Amino acid sequence: MKKSPIVDQMFEKDAFSQWLGIERIEDGPGFATLKMTVRSEMLNGFGIAHGAITYALADSALAFASNAHGRQALSIETSISHLLPLKEGDQLQTKVEEISLQHRIALYRILIFNQHQELAATFQGTVYRKSKT
Amino acid sequence: MKKSPIVDQMFEKDAFSQWLGIERIEDGPGFATLKMTVRSEMLNGFGIAHGAITYALADSALAFASNAHGRQALSIETSISHLLPLKEGDQLQTKVEEISLQHRIALYRILIFNQHQELAATFQGTVYRKSKT
Amino acid sequence: MKKSPIVDQMFEKDAFSQWLGIERIEDGPGFATLKMTVRSEMLNGFGIAHGAITYALADSALAFASNAHGRQALSIETSISHLLPLKEGDQLQTKVEEISLQHRIALYRILIFNQHQELAATFQGTVYRKSKT
Amino acid sequence: MKKSPIVDQMFEKDAFSQWLGIERIEDGPGFATLKMTVRSEMLNGFGIAHGAITYALADSALAFASNAHGRQALSIETSISHLLPLKEGDQLQTKVEEISLQHRIALYRILIFNQHQELAATFQGTVYRKSKT
Repeated sequence: MKKSPIVDQMFEKDAFSQWLGIERIEDGPGFATLKMTVRSEMLNGFGIAHGAITYALADSALAFASNAHGRQALSIETSISHLLPLKEGDQLQTKVEEISLQHRIALYRILIFNQHQELAATFQGTVYRKSKT
Repeated sequence: MKKSPIVDQMFEKDAFSQWLGIERIEDGPGFATLKMTVRSEMLNGFGIAHGAITYALADSALAFASNAHGRQALSIETSISHLLPLKEGDQLQTKVEEISLQHRIALYRILIFNQHQELAATFQGTVYRKSKT
Repeated sequence: MKKSPIVDQMFEKDAFSQWLGIERIEDGPGFATLKMTVRSEMLNGFGIAHGAITYALADSALAFASNAHGRQALSIETSISHLLPLKEGDQLQTKVEEISLQHRIALYRILIFNQHQELAATFQGTVYRKSKT
Repeated sequence: MKKSPIVDQMFEKDAFSQWLGIERIEDGPGFATLKMTVRSEMLNGFGIAHGAITYALADSALAFASNAHGRQALSIETSISHLLPLKEGDQLQTKVEEISLQHRIALYRILIFNQHQELAATFQGTVYRKSKT
């Protein structure tokens, strides 16, 4: 499986992605397959994963996939639809689609699946691409 | 300052909001003023707050403000625009606007300010309101 | 090609979809392939199609695909990203994906392609499904 | 009431805004108060205004308010929540808030009110600002 050296550097210093327990399966320019397991400290008052947990996984995938092109990419607008309640022990995995990559703006769609390959959430993110590498 | 007994119950069991260190200033039907401070374990690979941190604070405010009406409210669509990079030690506070409250659907806008009263992020959330209390 | 009798009724009375010159290729529960051509009266001050034109085509496809299930579906939240400028004479076509169909809430993604099969816009819509047929 | 000479030029050539019957009340850098009346040819199959009509009014306000700064602004991501069904004869008016204006990216929120000062729709738009005037 491919791993991007740019993402190596980002991930090593990414304290919150570490806290989430994110495992990198594969990443590179425009893609990032990440895995994580829902833990008890990630639950909300209804006993299901806080909405920010699936958002976090998708947002990390967005950062890795968009920055792996070698230019700094800043998230400017993101949205997420939560389709399934997630429980402790559920295993999540991302699938990134790079919908559009233009000079300054890129658009990504990120799907989050559970361990039964059911779609748990769908995320969309727009990034601004700086000149700086 | 008012505190909702419904939110008391939700917050007590909300492990992730506890991890975030959320402090409830005031909450009730349609509103929730929450505070939190960015900590080192909340930073991403660029040394600024992971996008999921501001999302989490806004999403907790959405859950509290919408459920405080007494009927269970499920988040169905949320979006966030990040306007400022946030650093360790920054203090965030929410301001909730209940834009529309209909029988089944309600719409909220949540603004996140930093300690300088600068707008750090703007969030919008649509919830589905169950009959169940 | 299949045509839904429910959409027959909706389309016949849909004055704005008629004005747009929408042609129905195929439609039914959860899908709607529609075509239209950009005309001069649809252009904005930059000489390209007004953003509302692609939005309109996608929103009509959303209405047809979601109402063809036989229960009235109301659009509650929609978003669109414009990826290409469109000119007079460009021919647009929709592709609908029904991402999630639950009792009360359904989520759709609608892609708009031009005559060169390039992705011109990506649209997402959430609908509320009434009991009423 | 102020009118921007930049918007004068845009509006004169904007065939679709003309078709909508948009009336400019006031506009300039970061703001645009526009009015229009719902006509029979703007209705959908349910006899209410097609979702694209309120979207169109908001999107024109976005274009006018963002371009009036003197640099070309391209819409990259927009979303709208429809809060009220609108009928033939309803009079709509926009209120633009410029949430954030940065070098390359700006964010706007546009509220659409009916003739009873009820909120009919809420729109958000992100634009990319070119160097070109």
